[in-house]
Amino acid sequence: MSAAKGRAATWGLSAFLALTAANSFAANDLLWREVSPDNLIFMDLHEGRVTIELNPRFAPETVEQFRRLVQERFYDGLSFYRVIDGFVAQGGDGSDLGELSNVPLIDAEFEIEWNEDIPFTSAEQKDMFAPRTGFTDGFAVGRDPAKNSGWLTHCPGVVAMARNEDADSSRTDFYIVIGQAPRYLDRNMNVFGRVVEGMEVVQRIKRGKSGENGIIQDETASSRIRSITLAADIPKQERLSALVMDTGSKGFEDLLDDRRKRKQKFFHHKPPKVLDVCQVPMGGRVTK
Amino acid sequence: MSAAKGRAATWGLSAFLALTAANSFAANDLLWREVSPDNLIFMDLHEGRVTIELNPRFAPETVEQFRRLVQERFYDGLSFYRVIDGFVAQGGDGSDLGELSNVPLIDAEFEIEWNEDIPFTSAEQKDMFAPRTGFTDGFAVGRDPAKNSGWLTHCPGVVAMARNEDADSSRTDFYIVIGQAPRYLDRNMNVFGRVVEGMEVVQRIKRGKSGENGIIQDETASSRIRSITLAADIPKQERLSALVMDTGSKGFEDLLDDRRKRKQKFFHHKPPKVLDVCQVPMGGRVTK
Repeated sequence: MSAAKGRAATWGLSAFLALTAANSFAANDLLWREVSPDNLIFMDLHEGRVTIELNPRFAPETVEQFRRLVQERFYDGLSFYRVIDGFVAQGGDGSDLGELSNVPLIDAEFEIEWNEDIPFTSAEQKDMFAPRTGFTDGFAVGRDPAKNSGWLTHCPGVVAMARNEDADSSRTDFYIVIGQAPRYLDRNMNVFGRVVEGMEVVQRIKRGKSGENGIIQDETASSRIRSITLAADIPKQERLSALVMDTGSKGFEDLLDDRRKRKQKFFHHKPPKVLDVCQVPMGGRVTK
Repeated sequence: MSAAKGRAATWGLSAFLALTAANSFAANDLLWREVSPDNLIFMDLHEGRVTIELNPRFAPETVEQFRRLVQERFYDGLSFYRVIDGFVAQGGDGSDLGELSNVPLIDAEFEIEWNEDIPFTSAEQKDMFAPRTGFTDGFAVGRDPAKNSGWLTHCPGVVAMARNEDADSSRTDFYIVIGQAPRYLDRNMNVFGRVVEGMEVVQRIKRGKSGENGIIQDETASSRIRSITLAADIPKQERLSALVMDTGSKGFEDLLDDRRKRKQKFFHHKPPKVLDVCQVPMGGRVTK
């Protein structure tokens, strides 16, 4: 029996430490990559700041249009008008399907042709939704080698364009995945980015009612976008930068391996040696 | 070209409607079950009300101890002191490991022996983490027929007891899963309940810093539990009741089938006919 333990002391032994050891695992071996300011987006909500990395490799046309809309300040003042807890927060002007919009439609960018020059760190071959999963440029990716194709998977934090029934009907409105990965949407949407910091802010976006399909009719009850800004448009000396895990680094491979094997004594039942590609912590750091 | 469409009109055609049709699918055939007041918990946070259903079938000892602690008002005024975005919100007094606690330890209740009297609606046999998945009493369940065992899976909204390295070391502190299902924890924790309403409230619980393993040292910066109350302890005329999907009903089976097949024209790439047991919307309704 030791002396009385205060809260701080027991925190040090927190029952949960073992569960997230992998989060800090290999921290020294893990390389970090700075996101290019051309692909870095700051979305300021009243709830706080959300930092997004765009992915022009997988969705070049979508990224180009989104960048242009951001630069035209299209989104500033608009709201998240369709928010379903555990599914998506969808924002924009709600007029994606309005014929009067003069914003051009975007072609489907659901998957890309794979080639061996594309970096890829393998995660899993037993995934239910894709023959192979892994990571490319810090993004969770699905691949079908038989069809020589690859796509960005619908993990929490993914940013994609909403659309109508037609495959080529994306235009302006976008959604962020806020719940268990809706992987059935993979290869059906223009996924063009992911939140690298600020998911806790996204999680505070006001929800609509599930009975009303998440739609918030009363704009005063919705979360508003103060502004969306491309980092490249901010003077360099004022600009924040974002560091994300280098998913091609040895340290990242070790982290995946550690999460697959779960060697800690904490695990009385050893889990199957598999990885959910959407359950690997992929946080980034935003710094001055 | 039709007449000008206002926001309300285009909302009616929202690009996303097709994606969640299954949520409202079979609403008429789906039966609802009222949660027994002995298994119904109201957790009031400053952020709002969270409604939880306890599951004594899978974790009888844990439920008994949690009920007793709730009735002793053990949790009232305590905080969520370890909160990692995308993973868990852990609350209690943080003294789970303190030797001075006079609260008894709880035995491991990681899985139960299966028998054919237990209701089960099958979801999937290709799941990465369990030979079979499905639903029992409204809860997502994993099963291993070869070992004749069953367990509650770690889906978002699941409530479980934290513990130390020892399997039998749970005591008072609990966590709620707030991100992509950490299924590697299945069969390793005393899962004893799930949030049936109020996950959007849980998502507003203040996060700790990931570099500090989510621990919030400054109590004034943490989300506090105002009170936790067992519905059975509230006079019947003042008590709210909770309705949850009857996962044994024909309507629920149809809903699963609809989500597996994705017949809507919206899907240009038909997803594999598989179901993530944690990605089936399982919301409840709390009513007077």
